Amino acid sequence: MAVTRRSFMHGLGVTGGAGLAYGAMASIGLAPTAAAAPARARGGQGMADLIGRVKGSPKVVILGAGPAGLCSAYELKKAGYDVTLLEARTRPGGRVHSIRRGTTETDLDGETQTCTFSKGHFFNLGATRIPQSHITIDYCRELGVEIQTFNNQNANTVVHYGGDTPLANNSVKYRAAKADTYGYISELLQKATNQGALDQVLTREDKEALSEFLSGFGDLSSDGRYLGSSRRGYTSEPGAGLDFGTHTEPYAMSDVIRSGIGRNFAFEFDNNQAMTMFTPVGGMDRIYYAFQERIGAHRITYGAEVTAMRNTPSGVTVEYAVDGRSRSVDADYLICTIPPNLVPRLRTNLPADVIQAHRAAKPFAAGKLGIEYSRRWWELDQRIFGGASNTDKEIGQIMFPYDHYNSDRGVVVGYYNFAKSHEVFEALPHKKRLARAVAQGAEIHGPEYAKNITSSFSGSWRRIKYSESAWASWEGAGDSHGGVATPEYKKLLKPVERIYFAGDHLSNAIAWQHGAFTSARSAVSAIHQRVMA
Amino acid sequence: MAVTRRSFMHGLGVTGGAGLAYGAMASIGLAPTAAAAPARARGGQGMADLIGRVKGSPKVVILGAGPAGLCSAYELKKAGYDVTLLEARTRPGGRVHSIRRGTTETDLDGETQTCTFSKGHFFNLGATRIPQSHITIDYCRELGVEIQTFNNQNANTVVHYGGDTPLANNSVKYRAAKADTYGYISELLQKATNQGALDQVLTREDKEALSEFLSGFGDLSSDGRYLGSSRRGYTSEPGAGLDFGTHTEPYAMSDVIRSGIGRNFAFEFDNNQAMTMFTPVGGMDRIYYAFQERIGAHRITYGAEVTAMRNTPSGVTVEYAVDGRSRSVDADYLICTIPPNLVPRLRTNLPADVIQAHRAAKPFAAGKLGIEYSRRWWELDQRIFGGASNTDKEIGQIMFPYDHYNSDRGVVVGYYNFAKSHEVFEALPHKKRLARAVAQGAEIHGPEYAKNITSSFSGSWRRIKYSESAWASWEGAGDSHGGVATPEYKKLLKPVERIYFAGDHLSNAIAWQHGAFTSARSAVSAIHQRVMA
Repeated sequence: MAVTRRSFMHGLGVTGGAGLAYGAMASIGLAPTAAAAPARARGGQGMADLIGRVKGSPKVVILGAGPAGLCSAYELKKAGYDVTLLEARTRPGGRVHSIRRGTTETDLDGETQTCTFSKGHFFNLGATRIPQSHITIDYCRELGVEIQTFNNQNANTVVHYGGDTPLANNSVKYRAAKADTYGYISELLQKATNQGALDQVLTREDKEALSEFLSGFGDLSSDGRYLGSSRRGYTSEPGAGLDFGTHTEPYAMSDVIRSGIGRNFAFEFDNNQAMTMFTPVGGMDRIYYAFQERIGAHRITYGAEVTAMRNTPSGVTVEYAVDGRSRSVDADYLICTIPPNLVPRLRTNLPADVIQAHRAAKPFAAGKLGIEYSRRWWELDQRIFGGASNTDKEIGQIMFPYDHYNSDRGVVVGYYNFAKSHEVFEALPHKKRLARAVAQGAEIHGPEYAKNITSSFSGSWRRIKYSESAWASWEGAGDSHGGVATPEYKKLLKPVERIYFAGDHLSNAIAWQHGAFTSARSAVSAIHQRVMA
Repeated sequence: MAVTRRSFMHGLGVTGGAGLAYGAMASIGLAPTAAAAPARARGGQGMADLIGRVKGSPKVVILGAGPAGLCSAYELKKAGYDVTLLEARTRPGGRVHSIRRGTTETDLDGETQTCTFSKGHFFNLGATRIPQSHITIDYCRELGVEIQTFNNQNANTVVHYGGDTPLANNSVKYRAAKADTYGYISELLQKATNQGALDQVLTREDKEALSEFLSGFGDLSSDGRYLGSSRRGYTSEPGAGLDFGTHTEPYAMSDVIRSGIGRNFAFEFDNNQAMTMFTPVGGMDRIYYAFQERIGAHRITYGAEVTAMRNTPSGVTVEYAVDGRSRSVDADYLICTIPPNLVPRLRTNLPADVIQAHRAAKPFAAGKLGIEYSRRWWELDQRIFGGASNTDKEIGQIMFPYDHYNSDRGVVVGYYNFAKSHEVFEALPHKKRLARAVAQGAEIHGPEYAKNITSSFSGSWRRIKYSESAWASWEGAGDSHGGVATPEYKKLLKPVERIYFAGDHLSNAIAWQHGAFTSARSAVSAIHQRVMA
């Protein structure tokens, strides 16, 4: 059994990555003499247990109880470490924040919002979706957090783009946009192929197979033309007897192409966005309350504002304030998951280049607005059950709730936007954000968008205390979410003596919980390897 | 208010269909003097209440307590009718049958299966999904049946096709098949366009817009080539630090085209299959138990095998047997929802051409096999959470469960196939069905497919008592699910004196609950119009 496990890990090591078995990541810290981890209760992909239990309970202090901090503490605790978490907020989860009745936030401009949504209703101001491939799914399994589908794609939502193109300022159903776009590109490629335009690259056999594909993909007529399709949907659904439904007519080819109504289709193919996507039942923060329970709430000091962290000759020391009273804690090791943009404000004895490296992680602007309606007009009038409408207006998108289907109320996300589009809202007080978003939403979904609003709540991550950033945008990495290891990024992958850094900003899944978890696992594995050596 | 409603209905009448507001369908039966229906408690699309309450409680006997029968009874009861249902089975739902622990069926070949799935686990032997546009969603709302997403699309499932093409007998992830197919067709169309092959149909402006679309749609390089894409997924997901994940390499263009790995993509665009799709929490039969509760179980006689139905000078009469004892019931009207293929076996005084018309509804072969595993290998080893793999093997598809994610067991549908592919299984006893399906599944999903099987249950609708058909295939309509009104189909849309016919076979949504409901609403509206006249 142990041999099998070691061979398995060796195999993964050869391929040079964590493999599908995330557990292998922890093997970085596997000392040759360490005993194999006990079999996991729930089986599976061998979650990242640190292999081998430490002696003497080395003490690790962790700054931040967001995804990276909690994951670090959880994994270390399992391996026998004595962990302490310091968290400035009064809740776990960090930027993972599910907004529900009672949530109160005072932003950096001094405006306080208190959420008054109806009981059981919420929206996730931060992370809201989990791809199947992310380790987040495994933590949900391990922690017993129930997951459900997140509707990341809905043919009944609309696209709505401005400009002076033929279909500008129309709300076009996704399914119609898709049917027409796929129909016409199939027709065009069929035509070009028939004309012999691609005979240099396609054999006769290729052409036959391609033609068969295009016919089905584009729903083409027998002579290779796109003449519309039931895929567009009906204005009146077919029913009984002679009710064949009311077909909709396709847009003209040139209008479809020039208006770019297919510009957002690729979203659905993205490795991190393609269905099926998931989310915890009841809000993303369920994961972090589950972590807290496993770690033990007594190990987390909430309301602890860290002011200093230093390497000392024998370990680390941290100074922090709770309710204005200064405290300090010493430990053997430290994992700093404080957002990189905030680290330079601490008093530290870190080298200047390490501080400078943190400054290269620029705060990115993003945020959301949740609008509670007392009538689910999107379902009742427009037959939209979840998913998002996409627009080039400032609001970017409108996300419909994935819960409480068919009930009497629900929370719509009125915008989830980025960079310049978000900065417009970031600069406004909440009421003006709401008014501006509702005006834009009403242009897309009609006058119902402005009716039956019972309450709302918004957040702009750059204006939210203890974050001041939606996520890190590494200087020189072009707003990439990973894959570009800039010098500053690489610098922070290494510890400074006994201080380690972790967070999604130090991963190739920036702005994803997966990034925070894998970064945390990397840090704790490095500490464990050092301790076990 | 009443005027508004009438105007609204008039408007719908002008467009010649039921419109998005299904309530308008009931307006067929709206006598000019009838009072407006009371406002619906839950608002919305104006569900099909019959407008105006009848006097004297006319008696309607309904044969069959499947979707059409229960919907008929429910709508009639709301309008004041005295309804009686006769159902041969001992449960509501007809072909909507959720198989769970305790389910027992003896098929026409005499084989008895009793389901031993673990508590809370099931699969839907009949209908399993609901499109957003279907009235079924509205009935769920009205009846308080909780719905959840049905994963009808999953990038992590696979396609697996036989033959002698380059990729034959490979399990190709949907996301990889899609990335490569879309990549190459984009490259080909880009190339043809650049060569001027489509200058007859595309202006320079069109070409620029098309090029921009193709670049994103196909994930093309700056010189218009498809060189692979992260959309294919990774064999090892990107993680922390310098772990950029392990990319997968694209297949060659000719291999992708000739192997037809994109042959099933269009399924996802179908008007009735495009995400977001729904299903009731806990099984599709929840809808019919809810109908039963609203109608009153005492109005339904279960175990009632109808033997005769006749028009009489003053009404209708039905003969039936319960536990071998003959009984009869008289009524003012009758709605027959017995499957059309079984109607000719009854003793009736229907005209010969009406009996003959029923014979034109040929029983279609389809069925499913549910396999319970004590280990969710598809999630743990292959990161497939719901959705279906598609194959040209006899099993047709493998459907992964949409419930109990991340838990310790689950029911996989080992085949849902049709016509000739299904007939292979239909002809076998259950154990051989299982063995054959598992052997084919293991070729697609590996040896885990054959391990940890704890129980199974299968059903072939043509061999199931009281159905003897998965759905009707109208002679001359080419296996169409609607839209082809053959002479026989049209004949059954009219009543024979006081006997009306209803069922999905008399709709343009054959094999969908929507078809049964709209047909039922059409029948009850016709009766109501006659009574109110």
